[in-house]
Amino acid sequence: MTPVPVRDNVEIGLNRFARRGYDLDEVSIVPSRRTRDVDDVSTAWQIDAFRFGIPLVASPSDAVMSPATAIAVGQAGGLGVLNAEGLWTRYDDPADVYAKLREAAASGTSSTALLQELYREPVKTDLITARVKELRDSGVTSAVRISPQHTEQFAATVLSAGVDLLVIQGTIVSAEHVTTQDDSLNLKEFIADLDVPVIVGGAADYQTTLHLMRTGAAGVIVGVGADSASTGDAVMGVRVPLATAIADAAAARRDYLDETGGRYVHVIANGAIETSGAIARALACGADAVQLGEPLRSAAEAPAGGAWWDSVAAHPRLPRGVVDAPVPAAAPLEQVLNGPAVEADGRTNLFGALARTMAKTGYRDLKEFQRVDLVIGG
Amino acid sequence: MTPVPVRDNVEIGLNRFARRGYDLDEVSIVPSRRTRDVDDVSTAWQIDAFRFGIPLVASPSDAVMSPATAIAVGQAGGLGVLNAEGLWTRYDDPADVYAKLREAAASGTSSTALLQELYREPVKTDLITARVKELRDSGVTSAVRISPQHTEQFAATVLSAGVDLLVIQGTIVSAEHVTTQDDSLNLKEFIADLDVPVIVGGAADYQTTLHLMRTGAAGVIVGVGADSASTGDAVMGVRVPLATAIADAAAARRDYLDETGGRYVHVIANGAIETSGAIARALACGADAVQLGEPLRSAAEAPAGGAWWDSVAAHPRLPRGVVDAPVPAAAPLEQVLNGPAVEADGRTNLFGALARTMAKTGYRDLKEFQRVDLVIGG
Amino acid sequence: MTPVPVRDNVEIGLNRFARRGYDLDEVSIVPSRRTRDVDDVSTAWQIDAFRFGIPLVASPSDAVMSPATAIAVGQAGGLGVLNAEGLWTRYDDPADVYAKLREAAASGTSSTALLQELYREPVKTDLITARVKELRDSGVTSAVRISPQHTEQFAATVLSAGVDLLVIQGTIVSAEHVTTQDDSLNLKEFIADLDVPVIVGGAADYQTTLHLMRTGAAGVIVGVGADSASTGDAVMGVRVPLATAIADAAAARRDYLDETGGRYVHVIANGAIETSGAIARALACGADAVQLGEPLRSAAEAPAGGAWWDSVAAHPRLPRGVVDAPVPAAAPLEQVLNGPAVEADGRTNLFGALARTMAKTGYRDLKEFQRVDLVIGG
Amino acid sequence: MTPVPVRDNVEIGLNRFARRGYDLDEVSIVPSRRTRDVDDVSTAWQIDAFRFGIPLVASPSDAVMSPATAIAVGQAGGLGVLNAEGLWTRYDDPADVYAKLREAAASGTSSTALLQELYREPVKTDLITARVKELRDSGVTSAVRISPQHTEQFAATVLSAGVDLLVIQGTIVSAEHVTTQDDSLNLKEFIADLDVPVIVGGAADYQTTLHLMRTGAAGVIVGVGADSASTGDAVMGVRVPLATAIADAAAARRDYLDETGGRYVHVIANGAIETSGAIARALACGADAVQLGEPLRSAAEAPAGGAWWDSVAAHPRLPRGVVDAPVPAAAPLEQVLNGPAVEADGRTNLFGALARTMAKTGYRDLKEFQRVDLVIGG
Repeated sequence: MTPVPVRDNVEIGLNRFARRGYDLDEVSIVPSRRTRDVDDVSTAWQIDAFRFGIPLVASPSDAVMSPATAIAVGQAGGLGVLNAEGLWTRYDDPADVYAKLREAAASGTSSTALLQELYREPVKTDLITARVKELRDSGVTSAVRISPQHTEQFAATVLSAGVDLLVIQGTIVSAEHVTTQDDSLNLKEFIADLDVPVIVGGAADYQTTLHLMRTGAAGVIVGVGADSASTGDAVMGVRVPLATAIADAAAARRDYLDETGGRYVHVIANGAIETSGAIARALACGADAVQLGEPLRSAAEAPAGGAWWDSVAAHPRLPRGVVDAPVPAAAPLEQVLNGPAVEADGRTNLFGALARTMAKTGYRDLKEFQRVDLVIGG
Repeated sequence: MTPVPVRDNVEIGLNRFARRGYDLDEVSIVPSRRTRDVDDVSTAWQIDAFRFGIPLVASPSDAVMSPATAIAVGQAGGLGVLNAEGLWTRYDDPADVYAKLREAAASGTSSTALLQELYREPVKTDLITARVKELRDSGVTSAVRISPQHTEQFAATVLSAGVDLLVIQGTIVSAEHVTTQDDSLNLKEFIADLDVPVIVGGAADYQTTLHLMRTGAAGVIVGVGADSASTGDAVMGVRVPLATAIADAAAARRDYLDETGGRYVHVIANGAIETSGAIARALACGADAVQLGEPLRSAAEAPAGGAWWDSVAAHPRLPRGVVDAPVPAAAPLEQVLNGPAVEADGRTNLFGALARTMAKTGYRDLKEFQRVDLVIGG
Repeated sequence: MTPVPVRDNVEIGLNRFARRGYDLDEVSIVPSRRTRDVDDVSTAWQIDAFRFGIPLVASPSDAVMSPATAIAVGQAGGLGVLNAEGLWTRYDDPADVYAKLREAAASGTSSTALLQELYREPVKTDLITARVKELRDSGVTSAVRISPQHTEQFAATVLSAGVDLLVIQGTIVSAEHVTTQDDSLNLKEFIADLDVPVIVGGAADYQTTLHLMRTGAAGVIVGVGADSASTGDAVMGVRVPLATAIADAAAARRDYLDETGGRYVHVIANGAIETSGAIARALACGADAVQLGEPLRSAAEAPAGGAWWDSVAAHPRLPRGVVDAPVPAAAPLEQVLNGPAVEADGRTNLFGALARTMAKTGYRDLKEFQRVDLVIGG
Repeated sequence: MTPVPVRDNVEIGLNRFARRGYDLDEVSIVPSRRTRDVDDVSTAWQIDAFRFGIPLVASPSDAVMSPATAIAVGQAGGLGVLNAEGLWTRYDDPADVYAKLREAAASGTSSTALLQELYREPVKTDLITARVKELRDSGVTSAVRISPQHTEQFAATVLSAGVDLLVIQGTIVSAEHVTTQDDSLNLKEFIADLDVPVIVGGAADYQTTLHLMRTGAAGVIVGVGADSASTGDAVMGVRVPLATAIADAAAARRDYLDETGGRYVHVIANGAIETSGAIARALACGADAVQLGEPLRSAAEAPAGGAWWDSVAAHPRLPRGVVDAPVPAAAPLEQVLNGPAVEADGRTNLFGALARTMAKTGYRDLKEFQRVDLVIGG
């Protein structure tokens, strides 16, 4: 077993230590001695056989991902991901459900109870099949998310429907799930048997990331998805400083590459990445791609009309996120992602801004850009 | 005498040093390589012969503790504590007093003068006897709090009423109270003579905690109870970074265990612990249990109808806390403690959330969970 | 010349260093192993032959110091200080001036121009004489403040009027004022010739404080008086982290005591000391007394009716403070200083709170209390 | 090649480091042992043959710079700079354009789209010639700004119009622009051929500054101009802690002075310098002069009537700043710069305040003042 490097420990009290971690917004990019034309820059990303113009994995939140928007993300150069356990597989036509949620979110009162109620409707496997078909028919790379808890239950349906990429995602996932029950998922065995590449997560530290890489996954999601609507910190006391988690995961990627003699597993950052500046920071810290949810809600096509919630906000016993009130549509999804921006708030032209940051710091591609100078403070 | 370990000193000016301390909200829990089923987790806690399903000691504030709510806490798995010097032993029926305080608190103006006035009513020993009897008759573990100043005066009454556990609590308590007066309490002699286990505090550092452990106490309260309604910082300049205080107290517990060859004195954290996330953090830093007051006020049964004040807010010459305006009732006490949560704010399902945090970080019981990985920052 | 100890330097950029300093509110007091009865504690302070029940030097701001309130401060146990260059020596009866300022301050618009205009009225030496006489006649220790710039001009008048203590105070004062003009004040020569003890300041670092001690002053004011109404930071870029400045000054006091074989020069802290907690912190960091202005404005007797400004707010070309809107009277001055408190905001019973902090941390007198445990953070 | 000194690195994650940087408002000036008369202080600054009473380079933003205000800045002792690619060279008479922008800015809604539209009007070379002539005719030192991208296109026109100083300024500029296109500007060759001194920037680190100094520039602008209306942080993830950048640039100046045996290239700080306090801090950190935009908008003569935007806010695809709502005129430009102040907010008498800070810390001229004591914190 690889020894775990541990550093920057703070002694919070006698003989009790805590790691010092950094959030993305504590870290910034500093231009240094070289600049470059923005037209000479590439933001392309490739995982397994699938190539993308922009390093975007969509968050499988129903607030932003419908079959239509998953396709639109693909057409705009990213990877759309539909939730196999969300509204689109619970309801034949979720239009009314979205309308109710949007209205409740706009009213200013808590929508948690409503969310819990609407997600009590069971998932239907025939709807999973139909949704995957819709994605495939569009010609874009198709991906759906299932939870670790229900992987055994739904994976066969998803796979036989012919999905291109499988995303096994929970808030906190490990390769070593200890249980007294017999039917628990063994990730390593499960992934080894699959023909399609798997993205798995979220993980929060070097060791878990390394172990998840060893399951055979093509990509590991790093971070617990804590965005501005998340309350996981208040509810569970869990917080993952994302800049540190990404850098640690990049170290795991490097070590795994060495231990396997060349297997490169992608690090996909997932957390409070809500502006183009945060995207640039996440990649600068070492991520290969970013998982975005909240920033997509201002796309005109967003199915919840600008409201936002993360999947975990619907948990029946312990919701860990709120339903955010709708924001006005800013632009079509294509423009949100690729510009031009008509506001200066870092929420449109998300990947055009990335290209400019790369150009102004002198980098040609994303792999090189992971070495850009960083600064803490200011 | 055990040498006092001192670390992480900052030189604030020439030759003047200050310890660097950390608050609970600066410290967070990081998931690491293992996860576990939530159903395989136990949050049980035992002090002396008394066993509890959840590691909760109620704060003896009149705002949340009546005989009825002390019993309800016991029935929900925790330890209720009634104040032997509060409204229930000053007034035969404090209903009107509560109504006045609730109304004043809701009005938005300061209720300090009213509080001072209402607490001028003397404590009656027969009411102490009656209240303890009510607790005992319910069948739950009974506990009452007395102040160090009035221990000589009220202890006999409390003990002869047959209480199970005695809580001797002031904001700041030491085992070495220096006085020019003759009638001062010697904690060590007092506790040695008792048959019932004693919880004593608050203490703020390694040495005081160790000395209080040496009095024979079964538990030491760590922290000065500074919650969001506390003004002890502004009034006295006293502030206790709770994460550090807990970790230091855990070190004292370890050293005392070693010096006695096996006596384990419990560390009970008391401060700004107002969400399930904070509960998880306090235990992760090394506490065996938490003392909660403010979070109980949103229980439907809370006697002050959602208003909150700490005992010290009623001090006749130097109040050190305000009366907080009422919050709406969130749920019955049982649900506040054990869920399910219908909001995502970390204020219901307090101990269900703890169990989930333990599961998602791979721990089975509270003692193991004290070793969970921590992070500073983010 | 004593070598200047320099520590805790931060390299802000290549080869450019800054001292790391701490403000009072970053530092707190931690109770430790001993407690004491509050009645066994003394807050007495003595400078030269003058003894005070509380370690209070009033700020010579017209907002809080009239002849009457200077006397009231003396009667309550502190040292009142009247400004020899303020409204009471510019106007025979400043009642109208106060009324105008109070009204303007209450209106919510800036009163800077009005303040500048009202302070254009020249100072009259006969009014200085009359005001000092009024102070002396009361029987309390009398003190007036003059500025370094006008010491030559007004000192003779002040001294012949028979003041007990002279306060030479500007925002920033040094013992080494370099000038191309002939008439500049040489502090050392001036003080050597005097019969009355002198308090001089403000100073901000070890070396200036040491040099001012060497002028023969009985006390040095440390800090530049930056309270919540001060804008010296925005206007001049000057900021003095007060905890560090006090601790450094205490080091200078110790070194000067050693170099003179026993001359103890008092350190009087002046800055954002607006609560009893801040008073306790300032003394804990090493001050012998505190200079208070803003906290006195809530006394019923305050001449500006609750408005607050520092002298420097009236500067004709570069005002460095605003006129703060009036606050309601909280209590008579005696109660503001010595209690009891009827609010829990740290703004009444200022010195009763200090006594309690001393008691709860086990100290009997102020000199001992300068060694109390401190904590940074939380 | 000069080795690059690197210090104060923080390991944000395993093997990934970030430089620790400081913003201007984290750093303050501490008075030390000497004071001086304000009349004995000089704020004079000289670059190449041009001498100025105050170390001010105006920001070439249309919000504050018209030909008239550029001249007024010169008459008040500073260096006015007109944008050769701004409204005054796009429109014959931009009065209507200013009126529209001011109205839109006052309305509270975003003016970004309007700004983009108004800046689509092409630049006319005959207007450049006319504007430069207007500056020259006034007798003040004339300066215009061109962007690096359009230097080839407009420089000949600007130079033949007889400008005294050329400012080549983009948000981020390097001496090593890598391009696949043939027509890119080689700064070093371009500047070597010129007769007029050039100021170039912005740069953000030691190495880029050093390289820009080697192009033969007379001054280098340090910082990316990020003021309170800038959104470069959110849009691009780029942030330059200005105190650190200035100190690093001062180190580059020193090293370049040594490597050339005496060529002194001026460091001009550009960022969130919005008060006289910030001006003093920037110079204290090592700058020779400051570039000010936002603070000039409250001058009565400001062409946008108090609204503020930076040039980059008009970018057609990626705007990185907003249009700030108008502020009321505070005083004529001369008074904004040289006083007296009638408010205490650090926004008038900008350079009179600087002189006072220099006097109160004992320095006679700006070069000496670069050594003043600094403090971090408080």
